[in-house]
Amino acid sequence: MINYPKGLSRTRPPQKESKKNARAFVSATESTHQSKKERALRLSKKQVQNLVEFGKRGMNFESEINETNAYYLAHHIAVIHKKPTPIQIVKVDYPKRSKAKITEAYFRQASTTDYSGVWQGKYIDFEAKETQQKTVFPLKNFHEHQIVHMERVIEQKGIAFVLLHFASIEETYLLPSINLIKFYYEKHGLKSIPIQYIREFGFEIPTQQIPRIPYLDILKKLCEVNEN
Amino acid sequence: MINYPKGLSRTRPPQKESKKNARAFVSATESTHQSKKERALRLSKKQVQNLVEFGKRGMNFESEINETNAYYLAHHIAVIHKKPTPIQIVKVDYPKRSKAKITEAYFRQASTTDYSGVWQGKYIDFEAKETQQKTVFPLKNFHEHQIVHMERVIEQKGIAFVLLHFASIEETYLLPSINLIKFYYEKHGLKSIPIQYIREFGFEIPTQQIPRIPYLDILKKLCEVNEN
Repeated sequence: MINYPKGLSRTRPPQKESKKNARAFVSATESTHQSKKERALRLSKKQVQNLVEFGKRGMNFESEINETNAYYLAHHIAVIHKKPTPIQIVKVDYPKRSKAKITEAYFRQASTTDYSGVWQGKYIDFEAKETQQKTVFPLKNFHEHQIVHMERVIEQKGIAFVLLHFASIEETYLLPSINLIKFYYEKHGLKSIPIQYIREFGFEIPTQQIPRIPYLDILKKLCEVNEN
Repeated sequence: MINYPKGLSRTRPPQKESKKNARAFVSATESTHQSKKERALRLSKKQVQNLVEFGKRGMNFESEINETNAYYLAHHIAVIHKKPTPIQIVKVDYPKRSKAKITEAYFRQASTTDYSGVWQGKYIDFEAKETQQKTVFPLKNFHEHQIVHMERVIEQKGIAFVLLHFASIEETYLLPSINLIKFYYEKHGLKSIPIQYIREFGFEIPTQQIPRIPYLDILKKLCEVNEN
């Protein structure tokens, strides 16, 4: 059922994890809330083209995440799904002898992150993005609605993070959302997060054959650290 | 920001809640898993028409749930969102000076429930449905994918339930998914759940002005019962 097109394991030694950092992540409840109204807006032509282009670039990483989630689901480890893309439907036709056909619709901007679900009673919420950059991760990958959503999830004691994939150097990191949020507000002038910051506050995920991106292994360790 | 078109409060005395039932709900981990492949299928014309018709009938209840969730979000009580309807996009046009326009797309059957989110660290997952029937709730409101999804959520110790609204008699119930699942498998010959069953295993939600359908009040009580 699950295909792993790239048979080679590109396992790398995981970085040492800071206990302090782990505690801050799992128990993080601090949050900056904005009264700005959350609205679902139609995406512009340029935004959709970026989305489509990014989608093409991101296919491998996204499908690896989806395969990992399928593995977790099939093995009763966690129930984590990608949310459907929000679409504004304007017109639906019912052609003869055929299925209902949407003939006019528009993309809307997501007000939350892409992935959410449950793992051992805990609420899991994340966004997965990749870049071709080698030393920085562009902040344009995250829009303000998503940052605000992550803050809300942390406030409700959900586990919020981002999975960042550096395609060129084949490194994948789990960065707790609290660290992304801090960077986003404190360094708003900067257009990218330096990889040093991600290495300092994030956790490298050693990619393997099955499942491809075992991000729950990182969360498991973090929860153990937090409980001790 | 939130409009409550029906100004009248139609509060009803809540039913007595069974402690045993509450414990069974919150700590429920039993589950029946099916190996049947989970596939996202295009909906038939009839299914979509039912969906659209049901959507019209269900507008009030659904918008009341959405308003309740907006209230919970605005008041930092919980972060619970309705998932977008899954759509299969076939063709996208970029008309001159205009926004990206989807010109061919189809409805897909949802593989999960409609609502999910986080409340005080707990994963919340539910489906909201209404009927014009007075004594029974038609089972056709729930398809097998959703039943399987609810089982998986319970297995992962998420809080899974359905909100059932009897529009004619103005009664709304929170029925733990475990009780829906049991009925679904044990009484598969039956096309509807008798209201007596819902009253026995579910919890009536007294609707009020703000928020409209305070379902978290029920969960709060159930969690207190479970912790004592």
